[in-house]
Amino acid sequence: MDEFELIETLFAPLGKAHPSILVGIGDDGAVVSPQAGCNIVTSIDTLVSGVHFPGDIAPERLGYRALAVSLSDLAAMAATPCYVSLALTLPEVNTTWLKAFVAGIGTALAQYDCPLVGGNTTRGPLTISVHVTGEVAGHGLTRGGAVAGDRVFVSGSLGDAAAALAYLEASRPNQNIEALLERYYAPQARIGLALRLRPLASAAIDISDGLLADAGHLATSSGVALELDCAALPLSAALRAMCKPGDALRHAITGGDDYELLFTAPATHRDKIIALGDECGVAVSEIGRVRAGSEVRLLSTPQPQTAYAAGGYRHFS
Amino acid sequence: MDEFELIETLFAPLGKAHPSILVGIGDDGAVVSPQAGCNIVTSIDTLVSGVHFPGDIAPERLGYRALAVSLSDLAAMAATPCYVSLALTLPEVNTTWLKAFVAGIGTALAQYDCPLVGGNTTRGPLTISVHVTGEVAGHGLTRGGAVAGDRVFVSGSLGDAAAALAYLEASRPNQNIEALLERYYAPQARIGLALRLRPLASAAIDISDGLLADAGHLATSSGVALELDCAALPLSAALRAMCKPGDALRHAITGGDDYELLFTAPATHRDKIIALGDECGVAVSEIGRVRAGSEVRLLSTPQPQTAYAAGGYRHFS
Repeated sequence: MDEFELIETLFAPLGKAHPSILVGIGDDGAVVSPQAGCNIVTSIDTLVSGVHFPGDIAPERLGYRALAVSLSDLAAMAATPCYVSLALTLPEVNTTWLKAFVAGIGTALAQYDCPLVGGNTTRGPLTISVHVTGEVAGHGLTRGGAVAGDRVFVSGSLGDAAAALAYLEASRPNQNIEALLERYYAPQARIGLALRLRPLASAAIDISDGLLADAGHLATSSGVALELDCAALPLSAALRAMCKPGDALRHAITGGDDYELLFTAPATHRDKIIALGDECGVAVSEIGRVRAGSEVRLLSTPQPQTAYAAGGYRHFS
Repeated sequence: MDEFELIETLFAPLGKAHPSILVGIGDDGAVVSPQAGCNIVTSIDTLVSGVHFPGDIAPERLGYRALAVSLSDLAAMAATPCYVSLALTLPEVNTTWLKAFVAGIGTALAQYDCPLVGGNTTRGPLTISVHVTGEVAGHGLTRGGAVAGDRVFVSGSLGDAAAALAYLEASRPNQNIEALLERYYAPQARIGLALRLRPLASAAIDISDGLLADAGHLATSSGVALELDCAALPLSAALRAMCKPGDALRHAITGGDDYELLFTAPATHRDKIIALGDECGVAVSEIGRVRAGSEVRLLSTPQPQTAYAAGGYRHFS
């Protein structure tokens, strides 16, 4: 068996039989039967070694994270995940590494009931591109529907993954680091919550660049201003235990990588939305209001807003 | 304008308005309305600098080639191209380079009437992943339908791109090199031919790894043997002018990168298929027969078949 056949053999079990998949892994393309009446949602994301993850990340964690990050885009659109294609660039073929990587991908695919339908392996610097396809009735949830008067909500807690990475980079081990690192390695695409939010919410985005940056994207797309009350931001017990209050808040405002949902909805839906979070097992917090205007205004911060403005994740900065 | 905004501005015109695209570039995902009754065909391909193309390739040619190579997978499935997502990893933001790259992509998208619906730009070693989505009635054309008795056909001419690359690597300029290099830089996805072949052909694959290797993939998927008459392989005048006969044949048998279609069909469709090629403006040649058995047998070669066996494109060899 040559290395190509080995790779095919390792990935083949991820392309499980599914009634909607007419042609799966192994042909020039996959053929999939869409559900009648649904629209198709697609998104592509790339993770580059040394840029989006540490080069020495455990391969199982890398595989899981690569999938979860891409599926989070489907959550932000309130789409049901359907299938995934993977473009993998590898510097070498290491069977042990590959098996663990495939296991991590498999865990994520099983969690979201989403088969692999195709892929492509090339030689080069370690790079992973994941293309996800989902289905949605109508337009799904976009970034563009927020209107003045809506409330702003966020799922889960913010800043955990950024705090973990900052501590790792500073090589300061801490008893809380494992809980926080888990948030970095295993982000949860909020699909279940998003599907139930679809009839209630007016706009949504997943937080990958940081709350302030992604709130800015939502504000721009919707043509509104967002006013965020930083005293209301959900901070985990682990984050508060590990960081000074100012640092915890800074991670929550500027740190990406948590992949929580930021969304807006009419104030009348507030109680229903908070209750939905309970039903879905993920806290939902109200953190602000939509106003007429543009841009994002942070309230209740110990520092001027400009101190947080440069924190968003910018690959080319 | 920061570098991210610059990139968004450059790519935005490629996401032209199209009635089936409900949400295009700029949200967490694109939302597309599939044509009723059609199935979805998807494929992903990655090109890495120094592996799949020379690092000093002109960016406009690179953009065109990256798209054409991916759309060729849709041709091999006899699918109509619908939309494209692009994951681009760049070592730096060079506006001149990017404008030319976008122009090359735009030329290919316009040729195949296929908008860009999403993308993602990251920092890292130059790598391009293109995900294409098409539509097809039924299963399309797979690699798996050839049966004993079918004839084997190929579109266009073979070996041109491989010969051009070999001469470039050897730094031996030749008056025929430009015509052959054009075949490498601007492969033509045989969409028009493939759509008309769908009711006639039994199996198809595009030749990216080389005729011998890709015939092997088709034979394996169909559970048949292919017998290829190498005296019948279509060699361009430029190839014959540039190479000794033995070298021209070797390029045709082992060289990938021409992205021609290799396909099978019942013998009764032979004349109709040759005529289809004329109508579509691309020569179609009969080059062999499908037999019971397995693997590929080359007839009329000056050297034993084993001399050609190692020529297929293998990234990890």
